[in-house]
Amino acid sequence: MGLLDDIHSPADVRALPPEALDELCREIREYLIESLSRQGGHLASNLGAVELTVALHRVYDTSRDRLVFDVGHQCYTHKILTGRAAGFNDFRQLGGMAGFPKPSESVHDAFIAGHASNSVSVALGMARARTARGEDYDVVALIGDGALNGGMAFEGLSDAGHSGEPLVVILNDNGMSINEGVGGLADMLGRMRTRVEYIKFKKWYRGSVIPRIPLVSGMISRGKRWLKERIITENIFDDLGFEYIGPIDGHDIRKVANALRWAKQYRAPVLVHVITQKGKGFAPAEKAPEAFHGVGAFDARTGVPQYTGEDFSSVFGRALTEIAGEDKSVVAITAAMKEGTGLIGFQEAYPDRFFDVGIAEEHACAMAAGMAAQGLKPVFAVYSTFLQRCYDMLIHDVALMGLHVVFGVDRAGIVGKDGATHQGAFDVAYLSSVPGMKLYAPSNFQELRSMLRMAVLADTGPVAVRYPRGGEGVFLGDSSGKTAETVHFHGGDVTIVSYGTEINEAMMAARMLRDRDIEPEVIKLNVLSPLEPELVLESVRRTGVLLVAEDACAAGCVGERLLAAIEQAGICLRAARLVNLGDGILEHGEPYDLRDKTGLDNGSLMRTVLEMLHGEDKA
Amino acid sequence: MGLLDDIHSPADVRALPPEALDELCREIREYLIESLSRQGGHLASNLGAVELTVALHRVYDTSRDRLVFDVGHQCYTHKILTGRAAGFNDFRQLGGMAGFPKPSESVHDAFIAGHASNSVSVALGMARARTARGEDYDVVALIGDGALNGGMAFEGLSDAGHSGEPLVVILNDNGMSINEGVGGLADMLGRMRTRVEYIKFKKWYRGSVIPRIPLVSGMISRGKRWLKERIITENIFDDLGFEYIGPIDGHDIRKVANALRWAKQYRAPVLVHVITQKGKGFAPAEKAPEAFHGVGAFDARTGVPQYTGEDFSSVFGRALTEIAGEDKSVVAITAAMKEGTGLIGFQEAYPDRFFDVGIAEEHACAMAAGMAAQGLKPVFAVYSTFLQRCYDMLIHDVALMGLHVVFGVDRAGIVGKDGATHQGAFDVAYLSSVPGMKLYAPSNFQELRSMLRMAVLADTGPVAVRYPRGGEGVFLGDSSGKTAETVHFHGGDVTIVSYGTEINEAMMAARMLRDRDIEPEVIKLNVLSPLEPELVLESVRRTGVLLVAEDACAAGCVGERLLAAIEQAGICLRAARLVNLGDGILEHGEPYDLRDKTGLDNGSLMRTVLEMLHGEDKA
Repeated sequence: MGLLDDIHSPADVRALPPEALDELCREIREYLIESLSRQGGHLASNLGAVELTVALHRVYDTSRDRLVFDVGHQCYTHKILTGRAAGFNDFRQLGGMAGFPKPSESVHDAFIAGHASNSVSVALGMARARTARGEDYDVVALIGDGALNGGMAFEGLSDAGHSGEPLVVILNDNGMSINEGVGGLADMLGRMRTRVEYIKFKKWYRGSVIPRIPLVSGMISRGKRWLKERIITENIFDDLGFEYIGPIDGHDIRKVANALRWAKQYRAPVLVHVITQKGKGFAPAEKAPEAFHGVGAFDARTGVPQYTGEDFSSVFGRALTEIAGEDKSVVAITAAMKEGTGLIGFQEAYPDRFFDVGIAEEHACAMAAGMAAQGLKPVFAVYSTFLQRCYDMLIHDVALMGLHVVFGVDRAGIVGKDGATHQGAFDVAYLSSVPGMKLYAPSNFQELRSMLRMAVLADTGPVAVRYPRGGEGVFLGDSSGKTAETVHFHGGDVTIVSYGTEINEAMMAARMLRDRDIEPEVIKLNVLSPLEPELVLESVRRTGVLLVAEDACAAGCVGERLLAAIEQAGICLRAARLVNLGDGILEHGEPYDLRDKTGLDNGSLMRTVLEMLHGEDKA
Repeated sequence: MGLLDDIHSPADVRALPPEALDELCREIREYLIESLSRQGGHLASNLGAVELTVALHRVYDTSRDRLVFDVGHQCYTHKILTGRAAGFNDFRQLGGMAGFPKPSESVHDAFIAGHASNSVSVALGMARARTARGEDYDVVALIGDGALNGGMAFEGLSDAGHSGEPLVVILNDNGMSINEGVGGLADMLGRMRTRVEYIKFKKWYRGSVIPRIPLVSGMISRGKRWLKERIITENIFDDLGFEYIGPIDGHDIRKVANALRWAKQYRAPVLVHVITQKGKGFAPAEKAPEAFHGVGAFDARTGVPQYTGEDFSSVFGRALTEIAGEDKSVVAITAAMKEGTGLIGFQEAYPDRFFDVGIAEEHACAMAAGMAAQGLKPVFAVYSTFLQRCYDMLIHDVALMGLHVVFGVDRAGIVGKDGATHQGAFDVAYLSSVPGMKLYAPSNFQELRSMLRMAVLADTGPVAVRYPRGGEGVFLGDSSGKTAETVHFHGGDVTIVSYGTEINEAMMAARMLRDRDIEPEVIKLNVLSPLEPELVLESVRRTGVLLVAEDACAAGCVGERLLAAIEQAGICLRAARLVNLGDGILEHGEPYDLRDKTGLDNGSLMRTVLEMLHGEDKA
């Protein structure tokens, strides 16, 4: 493959002559496109960050300097340059290389990443630790313009700018949120990209004058302070106490490296504004970068994705659009996830009733509460793992007033390849603790349609509908009318309880048990909170044996609540097992591999029942 | 009392002649000082907002216009002017008037308040609802400079500035965080207060020119856009798309009212920057506003507070300072709560190891994670209710990497007079769901010292210590060496389980039961997560009757987990009762009143046991 074959660590990158770097970037892009076309991943953002990442490794030694990625899906080139190119062979598979930075994977990964807007805070913490311990290394946060919209990034910038801690924040501005026209911050970045004269001036006095003549630099700062005290501020970053450099062409390695070298020696909080093009170097991705944000396998030549069928997200989007047609007070909210949550169609049908607030889940939730307080029916579609950001708003802004806000909780349960930072393992626990929150768990597309309709049009107060990533299984019935239903057999040997798409594994396990002359009863829960245990109580009174299978973390799981109810009902079980996602930390891998690993697959469920009944595995 | 006697609604305020307003404000201050001196409350912030609130009611009709308070502790004048002056007689008592805005209390309270930084988001939601429903009323958010530092406020401003929705945000800048020198945002506000020339210019073209000559206004906007595209921006608000007016003297009713009238007719997002003095009009509070932020009863003449003894917060602060003396890697973090969390002494002793990040809990948590990743031992002292903001950071930034961050969870359980928005009802549930989180529950000062020491110096990974507001009870033993201990008797009739200061009620109930020839066993839990149920299992095997008393919400409570463990252990109880905070919504009132209300007082606990044993109340 050429140069790449000889790149085993960042030192090899630094050893390359400058004239070889363009060829290196070309090879990296080729490798990325070829690898991702086979197994998917975050393509566009990585193609845009190739030169920027190479420049970073020319200036910093990430084995000691701490490079903190924000979200981190743009770390592929970093992984290639830090000796992990081969990792793309078992990329995002169980036991294989992760799709996000992972300290346990490499010393070059300073911190975990996956959720947005935390990088400045984490980097400031590291910089303060360095100073407190009298150590000597550089700390760099790499944040995209989308993640910059998240409030925590602002909190971090405000504290960092005031702290004076030597710290470099690189704003990788690929203008996505600008194209999307989301937020005043995006508008501002759009304007900043055009401040040519100003940049020239700064390039001059920073690039040449300051380093040599401290006096001049001092005069300039005083001059700027004088101006600040009157009318002029450079921009929001400078307002918060950062030295600002930019915008810089992020595909010009020399310019980026020079800016980083200057920032490195400035020994204060510096923000380097770098402009990159998402999808750079791959025509289909340049044309439609959003389509290539997170992709499945595709044709490396044409970029045409392999066919992927209907999934819960697309069903949700169409169902909500239909409901909105019947009730004008229904509005849809997303936090920069309109593709992922299936809301494109809603936006096209009802542009005035669609609100993309950018990466700002907290704001989305509190805004929805305000809308509900004034007579709208807001539906916030959000991934289970990102809704964690709203726990306080769920309680304080929504639940305390019992406001009717609907949450479309997408990617609930096992998510798969995106790994530990993205699994929807906690929503059952934290949503159940929100006062008055009703929680639906549809098992297939039809139930999602029915339950969403009830949630939006029939229910009052806070209500959430949780559904998984991907498609439905063999169970296609609609039992949405009941909070719980016996969906399979009515046997007296064992009670198997489950919900969502996991019900398919439970039913298959039940079939296999029947072939072994064991009579199970399978109960499917449709409403997880408030939990109505009556049907389960009635069943375990007969069977005396209980298995609860759920794709949720153990703490606060449904099984725990059922056992408590059973104990309080004075029923003494002969045996009980709870199969779930344990502590909630679940690595990346294919969903079916993760099901096997957690014992949630039908074979494991069957064996668990046999163990309970016979005290040993009869499988 | 004069004018106040005739103020029964805001209409009466609007009916007053301008020359009467100063006298009205004088009477309001007199009434506030007199009332709060008797029963305490948030004094300084309310004294500072008197003229601002009167001006608001001169311009807006809060029975239809929506006034959204941020945090809301500055709402007292608003309550007085909206017919609730008499409410200060049973102020913050059970069934009495709340200390925060409460829609169920008055149509003039548009939204609940208590947590910071949500007002712009809520107001934008209301403004969008108004527009979507084609209604006609004004929406105003009133936010302090401290709350403005919270990231959600930035998310709200970014979305609102871009939206173009007619909306007024009033920044009540009393410069507290500036005096505290917290954050780059505070520094910026400090600079803005001095931009005199600029203000004059704006006052001129806004006050006189714009209203009359739209052409000129258009030219000015175009001119400003031209400047923006080059170097100049007014400030952060203007960057985000707001029209900015200010700073304005918040104690000049005429000026404030004029600014509001202009903002009202501008039909776009406007930010009105008002400068007020915290504690205004009460010499002791003007001198030391922080001391009068939230006060107990005090001498209305001198401001000298009635004596209050040592409490868990002060013990925590001294213990942490002592620990920091032994381990240089220990640092303390607070989110604008250094007084409340008892960290003043720590700051004095170790200024370089003390970090007040302002109202920015998310940032505080992620920053702590970065510190821990690089070798420090960060301790984040935070109220239970505000730590809810960090649920995602607890999981993503701290737990996934198993980082050793210590959380001092203050105000856990029943908080009392501050009411539903402040009760620490959820921490047991949400902290138990965080992977690997260890949760201590000390019952007295000595146990807090011991457990904090273990948490900081002995434990690894995420660890939290939860302790209540106020002082300790009769139980003064130190059982911190064990995860659970039988602290009272060893009877065979009933097992009573509790933790924290609630153990005092449990032990008293046990004594009263003994007087009735019932032999109880009282087990005190010291570590709530991971939960080690063995001691309880051993006990209920003998007694067959269980009562679990805890000041936490029912969902995910310890009692639920104990019952699940008991069922899985194959033990069949004759009777079991869980006494707790139910759905977690607990109104304001004296803690002892709230204990009675929830059945957590010793008398109720005793009666509950008698009911379980005899099927009826023998008390």
